Amino acid sequence: MIILGIDPGLSLTGWGIIEAVSRDKMHALKYGYIKTSPPATLIERLQAVHDNLQDIIDTYKPEVVAIEEIFFLKAAKSVAAVGQSRGAIVLTVSMNKIPLFEYNPRSVKVALTGYGSADKYQIQHMVKTFLKLKEIPKPDDTADALAMAICHINTIRW
Amino acid sequence: MIILGIDPGLSLTGWGIIEAVSRDKMHALKYGYIKTSPPATLIERLQAVHDNLQDIIDTYKPEVVAIEEIFFLKAAKSVAAVGQSRGAIVLTVSMNKIPLFEYNPRSVKVALTGYGSADKYQIQHMVKTFLKLKEIPKPDDTADALAMAICHINTIRW
Repeated sequence: MIILGIDPGLSLTGWGIIEAVSRDKMHALKYGYIKTSPPATLIERLQAVHDNLQDIIDTYKPEVVAIEEIFFLKAAKSVAAVGQSRGAIVLTVSMNKIPLFEYNPRSVKVALTGYGSADKYQIQHMVKTFLKLKEIPKPDDTADALAMAICHINTIRW
Repeated sequence: MIILGIDPGLSLTGWGIIEAVSRDKMHALKYGYIKTSPPATLIERLQAVHDNLQDIIDTYKPEVVAIEEIFFLKAAKSVAAVGQSRGAIVLTVSMNKIPLFEYNPRSVKVALTGYGSADKYQIQHMVKTFLKLKEIPKPDDTADALAMAICHINTIRW
């Protein structure tokens, strides 16, 4: 199964493609991030997020997308930016008819480390371990996107 | 010129199509709202917003879209819902290559009534007057969408 994990944002959207044949057998095919910034307008930035995501979907043909649930505790301005990018991302996934699964940060922590209060470094360390990578992927958004995909692999029935 | 005004939301997105030949000569071609609700999932709701908006665009072929700026003063949960719908709407407008203009509530008040502290009823009354309607369009989201389109007509150079 090919899973696309996404950590949505307007400035930076992390993504990671993982191929898994079982819970114990997975590897990263590719990972990275989509960056947009002013002076590009909102419409240009959302179009760029869509275009990049469409390229990733066309190239790796993911069978499922795992995305972080929107987080309400941040400032409303930041929620507005992430929310608009996330809306464009979810619509893009929908137009490609790919099933979408949403996970909250606690589910990701439990799925990767076994406990819900794991910190960011522990999650990143587990991403590196699960995927047998030499280094922790950078930036954090990319590591978080891979964590999202691993969370899906460790959550579903095989 | 054909203008599509939009008041974005996840549960309710107001829309209105106005044809204008000058600042003083405008009429509404059609207006209404897009409604989505649970048990539909987020992905289904954003797809429904997109599909309905695409139908409106295909039918009335607007040359410009005027949309309300996202409002940060509400609760983060509400900003997240509106934001995601707005992201799907802006991406849809972008994919149709239609220029998008964003107006904040104060600009709309000034453009319609001449002063920035007008209340909701005064705005709705001016929508009815500008468009020579028999009644104020309902729900508020539809009236707000028409106000957005009138704001654009009253703001640009003719």
